[in-house]
Amino acid sequence: MKSLVIVAHGSRRQASNDEVRELSSRIATITGQTFQRVKAAFLELAEPSIPDGIQQCIDEGAKEVIVFPYFLSAGRHVVEDIPAEVDIARNSNPEIKIEIVPYLGSIDRIVDLIAEHSSVG
Amino acid sequence: MKSLVIVAHGSRRQASNDEVRELSSRIATITGQTFQRVKAAFLELAEPSIPDGIQQCIDEGAKEVIVFPYFLSAGRHVVEDIPAEVDIARNSNPEIKIEIVPYLGSIDRIVDLIAEHSSVG
Repeated sequence: MKSLVIVAHGSRRQASNDEVRELSSRIATITGQTFQRVKAAFLELAEPSIPDGIQQCIDEGAKEVIVFPYFLSAGRHVVEDIPAEVDIARNSNPEIKIEIVPYLGSIDRIVDLIAEHSSVG
Repeated sequence: MKSLVIVAHGSRRQASNDEVRELSSRIATITGQTFQRVKAAFLELAEPSIPDGIQQCIDEGAKEVIVFPYFLSAGRHVVEDIPAEVDIARNSNPEIKIEIVPYLGSIDRIVDLIAEHSSVG
């Protein structure tokens, strides 16, 4: 069983955190064949934390957890902070495979998405 | 003649600003039929500013400018700050059509992009 954790920065503005939770729900709907569960987690300012979000997936039976950084640039959060938080979950669950995939801004096809969206706009 | 301005927050970390400039170049490559020019501009901490970026497009002949907010959530920057900056350019160029299209995080197909990327990862 495999779960996906969408990691966002977290905001004091609850509507922004809810946007990420809503995004996670929509991803869950279309990845039901791949992921038993899709959950939002936050680096700061919102709950659950990254280790807590991963742990919830494991407690629900996940044997593999994919962590997706919902970030636009490879700043300190992506390069240092998220891996450090994920390591907390790894240390508590050495038998579980926990993998961080490349962050949103690094996905090649984002270029096509923006090009098409802006041309229609 | 139509130009596209990709608006990012801007960072003290130059590599993050360069990521946005690189993204703009890649978008320019695939939208050459639609946009005479694709330029990065920044809300703060990097150059050009939003009004300056728009003005550069107009000085190069743009009669229409599309502004794309490269942001993930509809926070204050997207809702208030970017429109206020764009209004500065509109006030200086009342004859030019300057349109802000919906921000990155609001694009429906981002869900498919993340789902596919995470499933392969």
